Amino acid sequence: MTQTGSPLSTQRAEPAQPVSDAALIALDWGTTSLRAYLFDANGAVLETRASTAGIMNLPRPAAEGGFDAAFDAAVGAWLDRSPELPVIAAGMVGSAQGWKEAPYVNTPASADALVDGIVRVQTARGVPLNIVPGVLQNGELPNVMRGEETQIFGALACADASGADASGTAASAANKGVLIGLPGTHAKWVMVRDAKIERFHTFMTGEVFAALTEHTILGRTMVTPDRPDTDAFLRGVRVARDRGQAGVLATIFSTRTLGLTAQLTREQQPDYLSGLLIGHELGGLEAALAQRQSTLAGRSLQLIGNEALCERYRLALERFGCHRAELVRHATERGLWRIAAQAGLVSAASGAARAT
Amino acid sequence: MTQTGSPLSTQRAEPAQPVSDAALIALDWGTTSLRAYLFDANGAVLETRASTAGIMNLPRPAAEGGFDAAFDAAVGAWLDRSPELPVIAAGMVGSAQGWKEAPYVNTPASADALVDGIVRVQTARGVPLNIVPGVLQNGELPNVMRGEETQIFGALACADASGADASGTAASAANKGVLIGLPGTHAKWVMVRDAKIERFHTFMTGEVFAALTEHTILGRTMVTPDRPDTDAFLRGVRVARDRGQAGVLATIFSTRTLGLTAQLTREQQPDYLSGLLIGHELGGLEAALAQRQSTLAGRSLQLIGNEALCERYRLALERFGCHRAELVRHATERGLWRIAAQAGLVSAASGAARAT
Repeated sequence: MTQTGSPLSTQRAEPAQPVSDAALIALDWGTTSLRAYLFDANGAVLETRASTAGIMNLPRPAAEGGFDAAFDAAVGAWLDRSPELPVIAAGMVGSAQGWKEAPYVNTPASADALVDGIVRVQTARGVPLNIVPGVLQNGELPNVMRGEETQIFGALACADASGADASGTAASAANKGVLIGLPGTHAKWVMVRDAKIERFHTFMTGEVFAALTEHTILGRTMVTPDRPDTDAFLRGVRVARDRGQAGVLATIFSTRTLGLTAQLTREQQPDYLSGLLIGHELGGLEAALAQRQSTLAGRSLQLIGNEALCERYRLALERFGCHRAELVRHATERGLWRIAAQAGLVSAASGAARAT
Repeated sequence: MTQTGSPLSTQRAEPAQPVSDAALIALDWGTTSLRAYLFDANGAVLETRASTAGIMNLPRPAAEGGFDAAFDAAVGAWLDRSPELPVIAAGMVGSAQGWKEAPYVNTPASADALVDGIVRVQTARGVPLNIVPGVLQNGELPNVMRGEETQIFGALACADASGADASGTAASAANKGVLIGLPGTHAKWVMVRDAKIERFHTFMTGEVFAALTEHTILGRTMVTPDRPDTDAFLRGVRVARDRGQAGVLATIFSTRTLGLTAQLTREQQPDYLSGLLIGHELGGLEAALAQRQSTLAGRSLQLIGNEALCERYRLALERFGCHRAELVRHATERGLWRIAAQAGLVSAASGAARAT
């Protein structure tokens, strides 16, 4: 969950009258952002609010009530109108640096296991906040997620609700393996089988891109283009795929040397580097799949995240022979609704959250 | 050439009397440091000076005489005593951002080609500065070096002068292929054949390590240990070698997750990450060698650079089956001396530079 919200903003004008059919408040509370959803009893989103009050960016220190302050600023108006609303949250708010730690659930992790792992914290205004735990894949190289588990069950809820979709991935959600990609700061690639998060990889692609462009020599010759340069991006993907044997530590230097030899303009360099990194990520994913006699080519998969970024991944995936990458929208709010319903916070009969 | 000098310092007390037998001043002038050597007519180093006045760190802007100011501060005292001394420089001082650009020499690059490419700039005090060019390997993924070419010919000069050494690498320098590693900010791995720089790779290992530890989430849980933790380092090398299929963008996240699961202390994390990156670098080098039916295992090679860092690489190389990695000392000053001699700046009869 890496969306960054604008400073506290309301996506819809607040109605003058109490929202009589509000049924749930849900929070996607990450490191650098907080997004709040107000649901009706059918799982439709009535209002959303977004702020930059992530757990590392609270309005005041945690020890001085920073979490309560951020919570009140985000959803206080809704609770003033409807004080009895249940509230659920997912993301880094449940980490050791969050409001209260919700210990990781181990893989293979089902939605029921997440519900069982919910931790409650009492807010200053008396409302309990239900925090969804993250997921841990233990072993020699452990992997963790917080927030993505909720998005994944949201994507599965979407597939369950819609029946078999055009690409045939939905029907497989319940029992066959589904591969879900969540591009972003720490990109996740998650294998879901039998409605459980079975295993996953984390690629620090987004954060490494930022560190390279802002804090290494590669950024010094770059100029941000007016609009993304898809050709430069795909050139980077191709180099990573076809010429990437020496690894990403080697290929990234070509961002500079292609500039020095007048083969890449300053404006092309950011997208070329982005293509290199995403190409190496997909090459690494391909190598991990190969260890299980699987491949990206010919596979259907789902993408969750920022639409423009997911479109980049879709183009890159085509270069790896994967032509069926489907963008799942509203996975976050659907997942929050689904887990709240499964936890009995709202009537389960209401079914899957509906997109607004 | 990535050594960082302390603020202007003289390694030996300056003699009260003129140095009557001084024959050459040579500069290793990089991005963040400047190192100066005063040679006698036999190629022995009489004095050295070091400063942080790299080309990106001049005492005043280049347009306001910054290069002359740094030059005078570094070697003015030597030139006051012996105004006729020839002066040679290698490194980023010959780049487009340097004092005067010395265009790259293409691979395969011999010492003669470097001499032919020397560019002269007139200093404010009237002494000409001879700048050694860098080397360019052109192609789809170009590669460049500035400074390392001089160190490499210094290492070969050492091998030529000493005859066959214990590991047998020296005799091969003239005609067979020699692999030379130069660990650092931008690590280079260079294949030399027939006394020419034939091809090379650049791995941004050192700069990526700095960016990851200083500007990503990985650094937040790290504590610098009192002394390097070799076990943690070798654990990282092993993970990269045996479990690195998904690539470095994936494995680096384990620095964090092994911490979260109490399998790696905060003090172990920096060395573990260093091992991961160097392990991936060597894995990438191994893959590049494999494309030419070669391998690291069983090979002899030479290392040039910071001794502690080269020792890390030597330990890591052993994990790749390479047990004959020889540290070449004084490659920089030997290379500067050799190229100056070959350029006729000093008497060629003096032979190879001697280590101090």
